[in-house]
Amino acid sequence: MLLAQLLKPEILEMLEAREWNELRAFLTAQPAPEIAELLGDLARRDRVVVFRLLPRVLADEVFALLDADLQNELLEGLASDEIRALLSGLSPDDRTALFEELPAGVTQRLLALLPDSQRRETLTLLSYPENSVGRLMTTAYVTVRPEWTCAEALEHIRLHGRDSETIAMLYVTDDRGRLTAAVSLRRLILAPPETRVAECMEDHPERALRSLQDREEAVRVFRKFDCYALPVTDADGSLLGIVTIDDILDVAEEETTEDFHKLAKVRPIETSLRRASFVELYGKRIGWLVGLVFMNVFSGAAMSPFENLISRMAVLITFMPLLIDSSGNAGSQTATLVIRALALGEIRARDAGRLLAREALVGLCLGVLMGAAVFLLGWARAGAAVGLVTALTMIATVLVGCLIGLLLPVGIRALGLDPAAAGAPLITSLADISGILIYFSIATLVLHHWAAGGAP
Amino acid sequence: MLLAQLLKPEILEMLEAREWNELRAFLTAQPAPEIAELLGDLARRDRVVVFRLLPRVLADEVFALLDADLQNELLEGLASDEIRALLSGLSPDDRTALFEELPAGVTQRLLALLPDSQRRETLTLLSYPENSVGRLMTTAYVTVRPEWTCAEALEHIRLHGRDSETIAMLYVTDDRGRLTAAVSLRRLILAPPETRVAECMEDHPERALRSLQDREEAVRVFRKFDCYALPVTDADGSLLGIVTIDDILDVAEEETTEDFHKLAKVRPIETSLRRASFVELYGKRIGWLVGLVFMNVFSGAAMSPFENLISRMAVLITFMPLLIDSSGNAGSQTATLVIRALALGEIRARDAGRLLAREALVGLCLGVLMGAAVFLLGWARAGAAVGLVTALTMIATVLVGCLIGLLLPVGIRALGLDPAAAGAPLITSLADISGILIYFSIATLVLHHWAAGGAP
Repeated sequence: MLLAQLLKPEILEMLEAREWNELRAFLTAQPAPEIAELLGDLARRDRVVVFRLLPRVLADEVFALLDADLQNELLEGLASDEIRALLSGLSPDDRTALFEELPAGVTQRLLALLPDSQRRETLTLLSYPENSVGRLMTTAYVTVRPEWTCAEALEHIRLHGRDSETIAMLYVTDDRGRLTAAVSLRRLILAPPETRVAECMEDHPERALRSLQDREEAVRVFRKFDCYALPVTDADGSLLGIVTIDDILDVAEEETTEDFHKLAKVRPIETSLRRASFVELYGKRIGWLVGLVFMNVFSGAAMSPFENLISRMAVLITFMPLLIDSSGNAGSQTATLVIRALALGEIRARDAGRLLAREALVGLCLGVLMGAAVFLLGWARAGAAVGLVTALTMIATVLVGCLIGLLLPVGIRALGLDPAAAGAPLITSLADISGILIYFSIATLVLHHWAAGGAP
Repeated sequence: MLLAQLLKPEILEMLEAREWNELRAFLTAQPAPEIAELLGDLARRDRVVVFRLLPRVLADEVFALLDADLQNELLEGLASDEIRALLSGLSPDDRTALFEELPAGVTQRLLALLPDSQRRETLTLLSYPENSVGRLMTTAYVTVRPEWTCAEALEHIRLHGRDSETIAMLYVTDDRGRLTAAVSLRRLILAPPETRVAECMEDHPERALRSLQDREEAVRVFRKFDCYALPVTDADGSLLGIVTIDDILDVAEEETTEDFHKLAKVRPIETSLRRASFVELYGKRIGWLVGLVFMNVFSGAAMSPFENLISRMAVLITFMPLLIDSSGNAGSQTATLVIRALALGEIRARDAGRLLAREALVGLCLGVLMGAAVFLLGWARAGAAVGLVTALTMIATVLVGCLIGLLLPVGIRALGLDPAAAGAPLITSLADISGILIYFSIATLVLHHWAAGGAP
């Protein structure tokens, strides 16, 4: 954003003037993330041109940083041998991530370009279920032997660590390939050189991830243990690969974006909003909107029995948006707090009882203050009777809204589903329907009683 | 969650039976995050007891992992010398984080317990503005000299790195303390031992964070460069400290939670939802709810001129929740997508023009399909005229809702404020007011025309 953005006009000039050597020299001096960002901003026809100018290693780095749709676009513009070199330069987990996003036909064609060993490795990683830890892992890691000295281990790392994604953690396996321990590079470095590796080992087999585990669980484990890399094993405890924190950060960000989208009842958009097409945006949004239209038919139906009352007291209607919105607002506040807390693992379904009691109290107190405010409004506009009706309705609907906002996400989670599905629009619609019933019922009761017993 | 949770009954038993030695032996074998989680679950009176049983180093680790309110509670239960030992065991950035959260009086008391050098360091870190990078940094880092060989550098790290928060990155400064370069431990390890440090150095002064920068910007830089640690300098380029990724992860999580809360118009809750008190929950929610009540007065006012129409055609009212909800739903979809994309830096205020055109098209097409659905409903319930009114209203209100959902957050960002302030409840209320005006205006026009010109 800083450098490449500032210099974009100059780059476009160099492209225009076909000053390839100057452009190449300029690009080579930039860090990979800047170039990746620049590529995203360029016109389609300039992208391949600029990308081709990059030296080998930098090109690999930049490519790994691009979004899947840009990677796909570049691959379409490159020759087979360029693609082959590029794919070989990617780390195993970045390669899996790329193939995951490509159309099946393209994947087949690209797999054919890979050397045998890389093809086999890629196919193995792709065979793990979508959203599993297996899909995130890389097979490039370093193992050490417990009987080595730290100095020997460091020498081994120096000779064999170059291709490993991280050397911050080293792993120890037994004869049958089962993970027995991990050693941090930090401990190897800080220990006197003659110390045995065995003395530096940490022994936390329970922290290893399983290849078939959901990747969201992996995010939670990383968060909890504050670590940079974790080993991945199969059900027998054999070491299959490692997962590093950069991939976990990406997953965490994706999951959070998904939660935001679900909260607003948008089916998760996978590319960035900037690049999302009209068709994608429309398709991801229309489903729930139309669904909610049909759900809202009930709110109309809830009103029908009261048409008579409405005709007689049109002033009641002028309070309706206020009353049902307040209930929906309070409900979506609760739902959002609960959904986020569930996502962070702060609360569990079994806390529901205690939370319910507190939420009922909060909802009631919110309703009372808001009811007092609306009483004044109602009184001023249409007399004490209407003021009383609106105040009682406010208390009841806000309370009901809060309880819906709590119970819906917790209930959905208890069913093993994603609580973010209880998004604000759904809460609002449910709050509306119940709010209308409550409002007109209270109005009928109070106004009838008032008419029968007392002052207007 | 795994181990400590499963064994909680046994721990409670040991506590009950006062089997201190057994309990101590058991706890010592657990990893720090498990113990931190366990402490959170224990009753208040058991917490200090269990914490006191932990060996020194483990106690420091566990303490650093606790939430601020638990830390505060423990400090209240410990003696001065215990507190002194505990505070000294914290890394400088964790110590800043603790003092930040404590009441001012407690901070003063605790500062007095620290040895001189640590007190000065803590006061310096605390002097940086809240939410600045300076508050996140630690002063425990290792510098190396460019003329050393890699082997010499590694030996230096072995001897002086023990107290450093990370040794993954080492820094090079000139005679005046200004940062000139960084070297990754990885490169030092992988290089032949006789290589000069100068040959392994990376030279990205633009990546250094500034101590006064906002911490949210630091999150973006970390995300972009996929790094584990970044140096922090003052305006002159002097190296002041480093920030590591674990602190950045915490900040990113806090900021995201804040965004969720703002989106639902809750003022950000700083402790976890589980521990938030009734008073805190109430206080953080009531402000906007009451504010929206008064804002909704306008939606009532918008309806007043149409009271006559409402009395004559109560059936129109039964469509009102449906129509204004749909507009609010579409608007909050847009707002949520835009707010998240702004938070991730995917779009900038200057993209507004292009986004506006696309959003208008999406909004129009969403409205047309939803209008078609509602036309059928209206026709079936109250004839073609009402069907037409509801359909036209749906198209107009959904379009307006989408545009409000886009323009409000982008506009707020353009003013330099946080776009998450344009939360769903605010969008809903604005959409409601405009929706009511649109609905009854269209109804007046169409029904008047219909009555004058054609069939019922």
